Amino acid sequence: MNVKDHIARITLVGAGNAGHKFGVAFRQAGYLIHEIYSRTEESAIKLSNRLNCNYTTQLSDLDPGADLYVLAVNDDVLPSVLDSFPFKDKLIVHTSGATPIDVFSDRGFSDYGIFYPVQSFSKEDTESLAPIPICVEAKKEENTQLLMSFGRSLSMKVYILDSEKRKTLHVAAVFANNFSNHMYAIAEELLSEDGIDFEIIRPLIQTTASKIKNKQPKNIQTGPAVRNDQKVIKRHLEFLKDHPNYQKLYEEVTNSIIAKQKSNG
Amino acid sequence: MNVKDHIARITLVGAGNAGHKFGVAFRQAGYLIHEIYSRTEESAIKLSNRLNCNYTTQLSDLDPGADLYVLAVNDDVLPSVLDSFPFKDKLIVHTSGATPIDVFSDRGFSDYGIFYPVQSFSKEDTESLAPIPICVEAKKEENTQLLMSFGRSLSMKVYILDSEKRKTLHVAAVFANNFSNHMYAIAEELLSEDGIDFEIIRPLIQTTASKIKNKQPKNIQTGPAVRNDQKVIKRHLEFLKDHPNYQKLYEEVTNSIIAKQKSNG
Repeated sequence: MNVKDHIARITLVGAGNAGHKFGVAFRQAGYLIHEIYSRTEESAIKLSNRLNCNYTTQLSDLDPGADLYVLAVNDDVLPSVLDSFPFKDKLIVHTSGATPIDVFSDRGFSDYGIFYPVQSFSKEDTESLAPIPICVEAKKEENTQLLMSFGRSLSMKVYILDSEKRKTLHVAAVFANNFSNHMYAIAEELLSEDGIDFEIIRPLIQTTASKIKNKQPKNIQTGPAVRNDQKVIKRHLEFLKDHPNYQKLYEEVTNSIIAKQKSNG
Repeated sequence: MNVKDHIARITLVGAGNAGHKFGVAFRQAGYLIHEIYSRTEESAIKLSNRLNCNYTTQLSDLDPGADLYVLAVNDDVLPSVLDSFPFKDKLIVHTSGATPIDVFSDRGFSDYGIFYPVQSFSKEDTESLAPIPICVEAKKEENTQLLMSFGRSLSMKVYILDSEKRKTLHVAAVFANNFSNHMYAIAEELLSEDGIDFEIIRPLIQTTASKIKNKQPKNIQTGPAVRNDQKVIKRHLEFLKDHPNYQKLYEEVTNSIIAKQKSNG
């Protein structure tokens, strides 16, 4: 299947970090950006200037001439955007890890699916989707095939994943991405309070993440918790007494590592 | 100062992952490994064969002919190793992030210090210490200078850090390294239970860690917690109901991200 026989023009609904990244990546892959919607005129103008296309701030004004409508909006506004969406018979996808596909069928859409990149977008990202795994889902087989082809035109790794599995993946991604970043942020805060440069810990963070490229995290766990080194653990908890929240978190994560170690062993 | 005028021969006390890594790195940097001690004969033989040096399994048999004794043993056995150490007047360092320098002065040693690489060692690591920050500490100025020079002969980044700051750094490293790895391990477990390949999440882990190379973690936090997206958070907590430990951890880390976001803002 040549996906561009079916999808030539794409309308982007949402002009935040994700919308931005999608727009640039779609255009680089040879798709036309038909129109941009954003409720914020400033964002709409900025992205439409970059992509050289029209924009609107009213969902009711969306042009019906696109072959695919890509929703790149936050989960919390996704249902209300769909409530106000002017077409039920256009191919439409959302890009969220957290929202089930029923959000479309519950509202009477006929051709819909999910196009979920396993990544968290920030403005400074590189522009290609090529290294980012894409998970697609659709109810109709023809749409599944179309989204697979569309995904493959953008990324080297495309998976079919139903909404249940996508939910698992999204929770896992929160742990692996958001929560690990918070662990870095706590480290940064503790160091900063003592006047120690965060630079000193950066190589350690890189090494730990690099090991994950070809190893299973459960097999490379190190530190006082996995050794059940209660003496060090107590000393660290005592150190954290002025940060009761971090002290509690240290205790919880430590217990979780100890419990996991036991169940692995 | 030419450090090798002062330190030519090094004895390694401990032949685990850290001892292994130190031995190889010291030799590569042109030092002679004088002797290996390990209480486990098998480990002692293995490393002494690799480094082409003598070994002993009795601390009382250690040869006094080394210029530097490097302790690469776990924190929990460090005091007892020092209790049985046969010389008080030789230059001796430990390599632990968690043990204060007083462990030496409390036992009447005269020339001592800390040589702490900010890294967690595993058998599969690369062999050079060059990219790994080294923190040194000594009581006597001459020993501080000697350990700085020794550090610089092995690593591109050497810091002088007292025991209080080293404790801060060690707690920070537990968060940034051990705890982030546990977040990966939880992700791996959740995916595996649902038959989803961990491969799908590896690029996300790499990207998150890469951003840390030149950004502050607090500025790149993403996810439902930092958006305070209670709908997604509730859905995830519900998803984790069969994993009460992970559910509790999800809640704690989420609350910690929300609290930190408020205090930043």
